[in-house]
Amino acid sequence: MSVKRSEVRAAQQRTAELFGQVGIVLTAEERDNIEVATFGLENLESQGLELITYINNDRYCAKELVLFAGQTCPEHLHPPVGTDSGKLETFRCRFGKVWLYVEGEPSAAIQATVPAGSEPYYTVFHEIELYPGEQYTISPGTKHWFQAGSEGAIVSEFSSTSRDEFDIFTDPNVLRIPVIEEDQ
Amino acid sequence: MSVKRSEVRAAQQRTAELFGQVGIVLTAEERDNIEVATFGLENLESQGLELITYINNDRYCAKELVLFAGQTCPEHLHPPVGTDSGKLETFRCRFGKVWLYVEGEPSAAIQATVPAGSEPYYTVFHEIELYPGEQYTISPGTKHWFQAGSEGAIVSEFSSTSRDEFDIFTDPNVLRIPVIEEDQ
Repeated sequence: MSVKRSEVRAAQQRTAELFGQVGIVLTAEERDNIEVATFGLENLESQGLELITYINNDRYCAKELVLFAGQTCPEHLHPPVGTDSGKLETFRCRFGKVWLYVEGEPSAAIQATVPAGSEPYYTVFHEIELYPGEQYTISPGTKHWFQAGSEGAIVSEFSSTSRDEFDIFTDPNVLRIPVIEEDQ
Repeated sequence: MSVKRSEVRAAQQRTAELFGQVGIVLTAEERDNIEVATFGLENLESQGLELITYINNDRYCAKELVLFAGQTCPEHLHPPVGTDSGKLETFRCRFGKVWLYVEGEPSAAIQATVPAGSEPYYTVFHEIELYPGEQYTISPGTKHWFQAGSEGAIVSEFSSTSRDEFDIFTDPNVLRIPVIEEDQ
C-alpha cells in the first residue's frame, strides 16, 4: 500500500490554501510544484510533510514547511556528506504550533502523540514547543522529529545546503523516493 | 547632521506595524530590537533599511528586510572575506514591490528614482522587478542597490553568512557604524 496520487494532489491543494490564508505568496509555478513528502508510508495524515524549497544552492537553503493538524515528520538526522559536516537547520514557526523533539534529556511528559504503529521508530523526546515567532536551531547529526498542534503549522526552515537523499531515518520502512500509487 | 534617536524609534515602530499587518510574527524581544540602518546618511526616508536578523551563523543567514515607500538601500557589494568567497544572497519579495539593480546591461529606463544628491554613488542599472513570491539571487562581489515601490516592501533575505562590517559601499559617505543623534 502507498499513498495515492489523488491524496497527494489534495494535500498540495490544502497546502496552497493554508499559505493563502496566512498571506505567504507563492508563484503559480511554486503552487503547482508543492512537494508532498509521503516517506513511503501509508497514512499521509499521520506521517508526512508538505514543503516548498525557495532556494537550495551549495551554501544555503530556505524552505517553507507545512504540517496538517497532528501530522508528523518522522525521526531522522542529517549526517556528514563528503566535506559537509551535515545539515545545520533553524526552524522558525510562522503559524500554528509545532512540537519539536531532539536528542537530550527526555521531557517528563510529551505533548505530541507518537504515530500509532510506529512507536519503535521514535526514540528522542526532548521537547521544544514553538509558537509563531519562535525558533530553534538543530545541530548536524542530531536525531529529531516534529508534529503540528491542532491547527496545523507553517515552519520556515533556514539551513545549510539540503541533501535530503542522505537523510537517515530511524524507521527502516521510510523510503526517500517513495512510490505514489496512481488512482485506478 | 545625522538621523535622530526619535526618528530611529519611529522607524522601528512603523516596521513592527507593517510586519503585524502582513502577518509576520515577531517575538517581543525581536520587536524591541528591530535594526534601523541609517548608513550614516541624513535622510532615513530616502536612504535606509529596517531589518530583523533571524539567524546568522558560520554557515547561513536569514533576515527580513523592510523598505518604506520609496526608501532605498544604497549601492554596495559583498567582498571575499578570508576563506569566504563573499556573501551570496537571495531576495524574496513578500509584500509590496521592490526594484533591484545589479551589474549588467543597464535597463533602457529604470523605474526607481536615484536618491537626490547621491547620483554619483549609483552606478549599476540592470533592473529586476520583484513582486510578492518572486525572488532573485545576487552573486558575491556584485554591486547592487534596491528601492521599494509606493506601498513599501518586505523582502526575505536567505544567504550565506553575513559579515556586514566588510560590505563595500559606492558612496564614501556611508558609515557602517553610524552616529545616532540623541534628541535635545
